[in-house]
Amino acid sequence: MVYLTRRERFCAAHKLWIEDWTEEKNLEIFGKCANPNWHGHNYELFVTVKGEVNTETGFVIDLRNLRDLIREKVIKKLDHKNVNLDTDFMQRKMSTTENIAIGIWEQLGDEIKILGAELHCVKVQETENNSAAYYGK
Amino acid sequence: MVYLTRRERFCAAHKLWIEDWTEEKNLEIFGKCANPNWHGHNYELFVTVKGEVNTETGFVIDLRNLRDLIREKVIKKLDHKNVNLDTDFMQRKMSTTENIAIGIWEQLGDEIKILGAELHCVKVQETENNSAAYYGK
Amino acid sequence: MVYLTRRERFCAAHKLWIEDWTEEKNLEIFGKCANPNWHGHNYELFVTVKGEVNTETGFVIDLRNLRDLIREKVIKKLDHKNVNLDTDFMQRKMSTTENIAIGIWEQLGDEIKILGAELHCVKVQETENNSAAYYGK
Amino acid sequence: MVYLTRRERFCAAHKLWIEDWTEEKNLEIFGKCANPNWHGHNYELFVTVKGEVNTETGFVIDLRNLRDLIREKVIKKLDHKNVNLDTDFMQRKMSTTENIAIGIWEQLGDEIKILGAELHCVKVQETENNSAAYYGK
Amino acid sequence: MVYLTRRERFCAAHKLWIEDWTEEKNLEIFGKCANPNWHGHNYELFVTVKGEVNTETGFVIDLRNLRDLIREKVIKKLDHKNVNLDTDFMQRKMSTTENIAIGIWEQLGDEIKILGAELHCVKVQETENNSAAYYGK
Amino acid sequence: MVYLTRRERFCAAHKLWIEDWTEEKNLEIFGKCANPNWHGHNYELFVTVKGEVNTETGFVIDLRNLRDLIREKVIKKLDHKNVNLDTDFMQRKMSTTENIAIGIWEQLGDEIKILGAELHCVKVQETENNSAAYYGK
Repeated sequence: MVYLTRRERFCAAHKLWIEDWTEEKNLEIFGKCANPNWHGHNYELFVTVKGEVNTETGFVIDLRNLRDLIREKVIKKLDHKNVNLDTDFMQRKMSTTENIAIGIWEQLGDEIKILGAELHCVKVQETENNSAAYYGK
Repeated sequence: MVYLTRRERFCAAHKLWIEDWTEEKNLEIFGKCANPNWHGHNYELFVTVKGEVNTETGFVIDLRNLRDLIREKVIKKLDHKNVNLDTDFMQRKMSTTENIAIGIWEQLGDEIKILGAELHCVKVQETENNSAAYYGK
Repeated sequence: MVYLTRRERFCAAHKLWIEDWTEEKNLEIFGKCANPNWHGHNYELFVTVKGEVNTETGFVIDLRNLRDLIREKVIKKLDHKNVNLDTDFMQRKMSTTENIAIGIWEQLGDEIKILGAELHCVKVQETENNSAAYYGK
Repeated sequence: MVYLTRRERFCAAHKLWIEDWTEEKNLEIFGKCANPNWHGHNYELFVTVKGEVNTETGFVIDLRNLRDLIREKVIKKLDHKNVNLDTDFMQRKMSTTENIAIGIWEQLGDEIKILGAELHCVKVQETENNSAAYYGK
Repeated sequence: MVYLTRRERFCAAHKLWIEDWTEEKNLEIFGKCANPNWHGHNYELFVTVKGEVNTETGFVIDLRNLRDLIREKVIKKLDHKNVNLDTDFMQRKMSTTENIAIGIWEQLGDEIKILGAELHCVKVQETENNSAAYYGK
Repeated sequence: MVYLTRRERFCAAHKLWIEDWTEEKNLEIFGKCANPNWHGHNYELFVTVKGEVNTETGFVIDLRNLRDLIREKVIKKLDHKNVNLDTDFMQRKMSTTENIAIGIWEQLGDEIKILGAELHCVKVQETENNSAAYYGK
């Protein structure tokens, strides 16, 4: 069993904001992350899959297929987008790093099985100081 | 003469958009940077000042003063903000990396003279692949 | 269950030195790390906590609370300090990266429970080539 | 139990190529990685060992011994070499990142036991976007 | 006048080798860089151009055009190639970092004028420790 | 004319402290950098030299010679040392990043001429946020 990690990046706007709350309460709880006019990040995404090494090719999975899958199912929906407004799989969810990681897992889990490997971890790095990792249920 | 560089960071939303143009033309010219609902970046800012070394302290400038100045005049106005909507010194300008660098220079140039040094360069890193540097007129 | 990681940094002096040994033996066993007049590092600290995501806020834990806790209990005692002489929780211990990681774990473990999450890992990066990680007993 | 990680680097040429296949098939399956005249990488190697902390020295293992072992058994055979042609432990194997990680594990596993610790993980970073990790059978 | 820098990357094989010299002399002068079976690097390329900012678009140059130009004229000829054998503009030259930087300058200088800016610097980073920069004659 | 940059690293202890001042005044002016028991950093040193490219070897200078020179004249005196107490060329000077850059320049300038190139810049990176560069008088 070998673990392969692919990094991709996306630049997106978002805010932490609960519609049922007042602006005051949003700012109190979420601080500067609740700026009404949005802010944004250069997110780094690390997708780790695991599987047996194919004895002929030496591959767990063709990394070009993994890259194309991540770009099609995830990056296209997040890069140069507004996570809250534009990303279908983040609707009706807080756009925290935690939830983005879970959302990306749900986009990729079944598809990676089709490629012959198993999704192990989705890690989202929001800034150089903060990241969230999800290993499935 | 020694050159000191201080790095600061800010996370901001923006878009490249000319109001007089149609959405089609904006998307044609600015591509995904014209996403109507914004996108964002973890910007890195490198401010370089130059001056003589004080023979007693060994300082060109007290870096804590430089840090506080950059935070007060620049970071407070950009971090967790929308560059187009929230930042006073970027109003009525395209929020390109080039213009952000020039805008920051104008915020800092005179103030750094008061601290006893001279502003040499403002460099703004938008992504790991793209940056703009301004050395004044 | 989601894993959140917060990075903090501290700049500290230390040496590897056993008082009961001669200088010769210290230098033989610990090499240049036993320099009598100390040396130092820009340490990077990665604190990983785990927990369930709050369905309302989308948070495992408020990262500002985690940051403040790490700064109060750990960084204040290590940053711009001498690990051997100044840091209360490192007294009577060798200041190896291994022991610093364990010491930080002991400062944070119970406090993070109060914040509603569980400490998962403390990783201390001493140089770009060397690091130690501790996951508790 | 503490986990120590040592990073080393090697610059090597390689290609993905199956001798029994035509050039066309190699290029179809392995893409630009099958360039007949080779290509190369600055590989980063992360070796993680685990063990108990020695109560006198504060060490799991002397990192200088770990470094010397990695350099002797691995780096000397890979750095400024052609992985396919020059590296003894990679003969008759595809030089994928997956197989390089497994090959390095086999070079180091038993030797690290002699140093008093246990090999936990070999991670090979081929580019800033791709890496493979192996934790043993 | 603003300076824009675009980073691109290429993974290539090469060796330092003078055909008129014996293998012994090549190994003596160029050390491990003369490994007969090649070695390789993840090169990073930083192309800096300078120009006036367009008052309507806020651009010195459209970075997508600069990116496409670099990829067409440079990266396509170097990425996953052997610099000595495969790259047309490096034939009959030693493949040192110095010469690669000069060679890339000659590919790009005139083309960047057509885009409306001026080439300022070509910097090639061979490893995290070594780089060469060329500013033209 | 091509510019070559070599990076080296050193881990050192230091403090900012003027003997003629009281501890109170030192702490007021130098803040936490005046911690009486020292602190330390992983310094990064970037030495840039310039020269013509040798038409036979393609070298401005043999980087192995530059590396050996920097290690002999600079790193050996700073790495795992106390800058204030152990480094001969920093005696009777404040150990600011500015002064360390100037001190290193004075160690290397004449020696690099002997190697057939000219010293262009010494840059010392103290933390990921602060650096000083010196280009000579």
